[in-house]
Amino acid sequence: MTFSIFLPEQLATGADVKLPVLYWLSGLTCTDENFVQKAGAQRLASELGLIIVCPDTSPRGDEVPDDEDGAYDFGLGAGFYVNATEEPWAKYYNMYDYVVEELPEIVARNFPIDIKKQSIFGHSMGGHGALTIALKNPEKYHSVSAFAPICSPMNCAWGTKALKKYLGEDESTWSDYDSVELVKNATRPIPMLVDQGSADEFLKQQLKPELLVEACNRAGMPLGFNQRDGYDHSYFFISSFIENHLRFHHGILSMLV
Amino acid sequence: MTFSIFLPEQLATGADVKLPVLYWLSGLTCTDENFVQKAGAQRLASELGLIIVCPDTSPRGDEVPDDEDGAYDFGLGAGFYVNATEEPWAKYYNMYDYVVEELPEIVARNFPIDIKKQSIFGHSMGGHGALTIALKNPEKYHSVSAFAPICSPMNCAWGTKALKKYLGEDESTWSDYDSVELVKNATRPIPMLVDQGSADEFLKQQLKPELLVEACNRAGMPLGFNQRDGYDHSYFFISSFIENHLRFHHGILSMLV
Repeated sequence: MTFSIFLPEQLATGADVKLPVLYWLSGLTCTDENFVQKAGAQRLASELGLIIVCPDTSPRGDEVPDDEDGAYDFGLGAGFYVNATEEPWAKYYNMYDYVVEELPEIVARNFPIDIKKQSIFGHSMGGHGALTIALKNPEKYHSVSAFAPICSPMNCAWGTKALKKYLGEDESTWSDYDSVELVKNATRPIPMLVDQGSADEFLKQQLKPELLVEACNRAGMPLGFNQRDGYDHSYFFISSFIENHLRFHHGILSMLV
Repeated sequence: MTFSIFLPEQLATGADVKLPVLYWLSGLTCTDENFVQKAGAQRLASELGLIIVCPDTSPRGDEVPDDEDGAYDFGLGAGFYVNATEEPWAKYYNMYDYVVEELPEIVARNFPIDIKKQSIFGHSMGGHGALTIALKNPEKYHSVSAFAPICSPMNCAWGTKALKKYLGEDESTWSDYDSVELVKNATRPIPMLVDQGSADEFLKQQLKPELLVEACNRAGMPLGFNQRDGYDHSYFFISSFIENHLRFHHGILSMLV
């Protein structure tokens, strides 16, 4: 697995410091490079002293099976951050375990990470990944944020296609990867920030943030939700508000001892 | 011809204002999109009230001839901002006239440009384009800047290949598109800013900023030259220092009445 990592400038001094880390999860069709090239996060991340790790969005390689029609929304580039249980996906499509377990260990072994100061964020399918992973592991991630996340994959075409293929027909297994369902059953609050563009072409059919807002309101989950008028689903939207998200996570991580 | 244009937020108010404009010229293999996606210029350009226009780097289309071997450094994506005189290039490869004459007219007809407040900047081949165009038209461009420009195409492999094919064997015609030669013969000073990464893989063989620095020193041309230790030739280098360049141009353009 390939991943990108941004190391802030202060590490270049050779000082023996460990820094907090943000994990960025990208959306459909992306790799470990989209955020690095387009989000414009580095300047402020360097100033705030935040390491940012960007994994790929699916397993890769000649042996890894892909959608039989090569569709963009399943298979390669579309791992949906689950552990697949169905064949032929179960062997390689374990992005949940990779992001939660394997990747932090690799990062901590090789870079000056403060493993006790982790947060997670993402975009679209990666927003879904960030929210579900944080909600399932509130002891590991101190805050979570998302741009235009798929809020309830059980209730949209992208999500049901992927969950059915990765997890099988039994929908009771899907709720374990659905942010709205996880919020309903959450036992511990985790600070959440979501930005959503009003001109996002996927807003009504695929993203459905109103379901997340309602679930958080009912569950008392601390969600900051910003509707951004006129913004679409692109990385231009992300780069416009990335600084808010970095400051949100930094504010929380910097309070930890 | 395709181009990108960034319009600052204050234009959305509908106020009857005209704003200064920067032209960005990209390097080899680029299109009108690289700067837009990767430079991270929009936030500050919006704050400063600068319109940014990004043309493509060559003519495009089925009829447009390309390098016979499909090389990246000649033909499509490599117009070198000259008016070609040799066949089969002369018909379409007139990027100099396009950038200096046609594009500003199209932009002024369609957008709220203050045509009297123009500056120009670019990267690599586009740095060469920006410098030569500004030096040849100091009455049109009030400042010029470049990231890792090809400073003397007459003295590097990229440049001699392109100039020979576009302009022919007679090297006396090449000096009209060589920044170092143009500086020697300049009759009017124009504020210049150049940033160059010390770890740029093309520094010694292709870019040769020392020739430009020496020529400017001798000619009394106002050049600010920043060597940036450890930076390479990529858009990460550009995005690291783009704000300095925007403030440089804005400082000059905002003094004009």
